[in-house]
Amino acid sequence: MQSLQEKAAEWSGVETTLAFAIDDNGGGANLFQKLGLQTFINLSTNFYDRVYNDEEEWFRSIFGKSKKEEAIQNQYEFLVQRMGGPILYSQRRGHPALIARHGAFDVTHEAAERWLHHMQQALDSTSDIDDESKIKLINFFRHTAYFLVAGVESRNQNQMPCKNASGSHPCKNF
Amino acid sequence: MQSLQEKAAEWSGVETTLAFAIDDNGGGANLFQKLGLQTFINLSTNFYDRVYNDEEEWFRSIFGKSKKEEAIQNQYEFLVQRMGGPILYSQRRGHPALIARHGAFDVTHEAAERWLHHMQQALDSTSDIDDESKIKLINFFRHTAYFLVAGVESRNQNQMPCKNASGSHPCKNF
Repeated sequence: MQSLQEKAAEWSGVETTLAFAIDDNGGGANLFQKLGLQTFINLSTNFYDRVYNDEEEWFRSIFGKSKKEEAIQNQYEFLVQRMGGPILYSQRRGHPALIARHGAFDVTHEAAERWLHHMQQALDSTSDIDDESKIKLINFFRHTAYFLVAGVESRNQNQMPCKNASGSHPCKNF
Repeated sequence: MQSLQEKAAEWSGVETTLAFAIDDNGGGANLFQKLGLQTFINLSTNFYDRVYNDEEEWFRSIFGKSKKEEAIQNQYEFLVQRMGGPILYSQRRGHPALIARHGAFDVTHEAAERWLHHMQQALDSTSDIDDESKIKLINFFRHTAYFLVAGVESRNQNQMPCKNASGSHPCKNF
């Protein structure tokens, strides 16, 4: 039985080491220090402007119950924190708890691909993101998107039985 | 409807700001730099030695399906990462995804208190942890334990309906 991490690597095509190259700054500036708060605000605004205007209703409707401004803030605060900046997200909302917080959404392979399509475009059209950082970020996003697909899928398949799961039960892979 | 964060603060008696004082190093060394890898290994070993030898069978059995060595490694790698050290946990297992990864366990108020009882003892009997760091850590642990109680409880109460939750549904608090 594959772990969430292994599924994420297989489905996304991004190896774990590559996904977490965001943390590998060779002793220099981390991605937050390199890009700064405003760049992450711009990236998340650019991204959600695209998402909330998506021509595909099935995709747009996944986000329809949240306010765009909140979605933007949640995302840039998470990214700032994850990329080595101040712990803005946790101070306001607690632990990221990525899978649990996405449990209400239909995180399918198709949704992950459409999310990544918009993020690639947002990255390409946000100024001040150098090419090396762009590659690190998209690898992180690809791997994370499929980590969520794997996590939410696994939750939906194994709701209550998890509590008394035996050694070979899929829940043991969490 | 309370958020997970608000429930955690109320149930644990630890305000959010206090819980995340672990990140507040006043520009100096963070908790990982202050305490070092070996201290976190010692703390987690000390903690799980107590847990796996607990006289309370109901509590001990929560952990019975995992190997002690794995539990120790998962915990110290998470702590090292969370306290500002290398991203050991994510590189091996992906995002912490705390609530999802605890979904298979019976995270009740009683279990949280017993967990915290052992952690307090482990902190007190692990050398090289100064008093200020000890207080920061136990506040973080108390808040996090109840954040998990709130998260797992909320998941169990709202399994599939979350997917189509309306604005007032508890799921919207994730």
